[in-house]
Amino acid sequence: MKILITGGAGFLGQRLARQLLTLGQLRDSHGQLQDISELVLLDVVAAHDFSDQRVRVITGDIADDGLMRQVLDHATSSIFHLAAIVSGQAEADFDLGMRINLDAPRLLLDICRELGHKPKVVFTSSVAVYGGQLPDVVQDTTALNPQSSYGAQKAIGELLLNDYSRKGYIDGRVLRLPTISVRPGKPNKAASSFASGIIREPLNGLDAVCPVSTDLNLWLLSPRRAVDALIAGHELSAETLGSQRTLNLPGLSVSVGQMIAALEQVSGADAAARISFEIDPAIERIVKSWPAAWNASRAVSMGLSADKDFASIIRAYIEDELS
Amino acid sequence: MKILITGGAGFLGQRLARQLLTLGQLRDSHGQLQDISELVLLDVVAAHDFSDQRVRVITGDIADDGLMRQVLDHATSSIFHLAAIVSGQAEADFDLGMRINLDAPRLLLDICRELGHKPKVVFTSSVAVYGGQLPDVVQDTTALNPQSSYGAQKAIGELLLNDYSRKGYIDGRVLRLPTISVRPGKPNKAASSFASGIIREPLNGLDAVCPVSTDLNLWLLSPRRAVDALIAGHELSAETLGSQRTLNLPGLSVSVGQMIAALEQVSGADAAARISFEIDPAIERIVKSWPAAWNASRAVSMGLSADKDFASIIRAYIEDELS
Repeated sequence: MKILITGGAGFLGQRLARQLLTLGQLRDSHGQLQDISELVLLDVVAAHDFSDQRVRVITGDIADDGLMRQVLDHATSSIFHLAAIVSGQAEADFDLGMRINLDAPRLLLDICRELGHKPKVVFTSSVAVYGGQLPDVVQDTTALNPQSSYGAQKAIGELLLNDYSRKGYIDGRVLRLPTISVRPGKPNKAASSFASGIIREPLNGLDAVCPVSTDLNLWLLSPRRAVDALIAGHELSAETLGSQRTLNLPGLSVSVGQMIAALEQVSGADAAARISFEIDPAIERIVKSWPAAWNASRAVSMGLSADKDFASIIRAYIEDELS
Repeated sequence: MKILITGGAGFLGQRLARQLLTLGQLRDSHGQLQDISELVLLDVVAAHDFSDQRVRVITGDIADDGLMRQVLDHATSSIFHLAAIVSGQAEADFDLGMRINLDAPRLLLDICRELGHKPKVVFTSSVAVYGGQLPDVVQDTTALNPQSSYGAQKAIGELLLNDYSRKGYIDGRVLRLPTISVRPGKPNKAASSFASGIIREPLNGLDAVCPVSTDLNLWLLSPRRAVDALIAGHELSAETLGSQRTLNLPGLSVSVGQMIAALEQVSGADAAARISFEIDPAIERIVKSWPAAWNASRAVSMGLSADKDFASIIRAYIEDELS
């Protein structure tokens, strides 16, 4: 089977690719394990190819019709659509957000529909689809009310994935991801970038600036669990998902203060002392609009799980990135 | 002030136009009453112009960029976007539904954004944005879960209207309409077409076929009240609406059996006897996915109201259309 990962050069795309290459097999739409014969990593910058013959690296614009028709064909049995313009950037550049977060997934879905072989499509959504007055724990039945363009675009993507699935054009799965922490690499333009930075920078001997107050609660998932969830979400049968293709993934509800306390517990007071506070109202407005927790019992009943606690997330980062 | 009505040749667009011409004034975005100097009725077929000098009738495709840029300009202070492909047709012709129910409103919003004068945009949405397992009475906080492409497209339109309003590109208002009954004219391709046909046809001495069973409950609004709601929704201040631009309009929860009983009450047993039943599973599936009632207290608190009972809806139809 041939698999496409959009956003394949991103940290989640790269980790997913590595895990898929190790696994070597995924379930096709009939539930049969099939060897992964080709793994296409598409992104605006060249992805790492893991020196693996199965990997094909393609660089280009995912909103480009011609490119997408080259990349997607009848042999593409599964697509992980991870590419996105992150929240802060989509808020700052409305046109870019609409193009990559709305036009691109729609183009992808329309090409799948034209091809007609009903591939599996795993689409990542976000806490940012929720907003406004929320219950303490968001339920599957809670109305979406995005307070950012990124959130609105993701909510639209969810509706498209569900409708294209209902019509039988694709076999779609929408995974609503908690905020991912600890992301490796550099800060990005996501409003939630600090949720990784306040841990990652101190662990790398750098100072970090936190743009929100310590009592702000976040709904978090580690990169390891996120990749597990992407694969588990792919492997679920269409029957298990039924007519509701959107899954709220398990996460941990943690305050910024608790995150810093866990950092101190794992790496000492010196690490925690590297964090200073400089409140950024634009970031705080967006991040505060997101739920601090949601009921993930549907995903848990399907075998998906959250991290044990935030200290174990930090230890996993150290293991994966610093050793 | 100049006003644009898309779907201006439709029965709702025509009634709205007539009422606006009679009123002569609407509130601008500063809450000031302004004379209506020009009323543009845009549709695929020519609208009736009421022999009124203020009316300009334009025929064309609302998804056509060039046409929309001719029709919309800096003088357009308000837009009533009523044009849509109805539920049954959008389900049968996916591309047409996507073009008119998604691309067209997005084009309209993008032109407004480019113009930069932040016009009022009244967008009509529908019971069809809800679906799946619903509470007996849908709340403002209930998640959307459309079970038709029409419903998905309307839900996407709602998200766009809300985000473009939040960004300050337009001053948007989304009115979620109950099913409108009794619509005048001929049956159309809406899944809910029967909700008017089983009353209208007998009142016009014709036989009617009902494709759903008598215990199916509908959430209904008369054309009169729908036009009142369109104007009231336009006149609300942006401050009253706040960050939530979507309003669930008041309606009546009535079963098909109760509708037929009201017809018998108003027009006698002979009228009711003209209805025969022929269950259509495709129609029943779509209409059953819609809520039979929602909590409209937010709209009621803003001064909007439902019809008194279904018999008065029938009497209003007779007054408006048959006398």
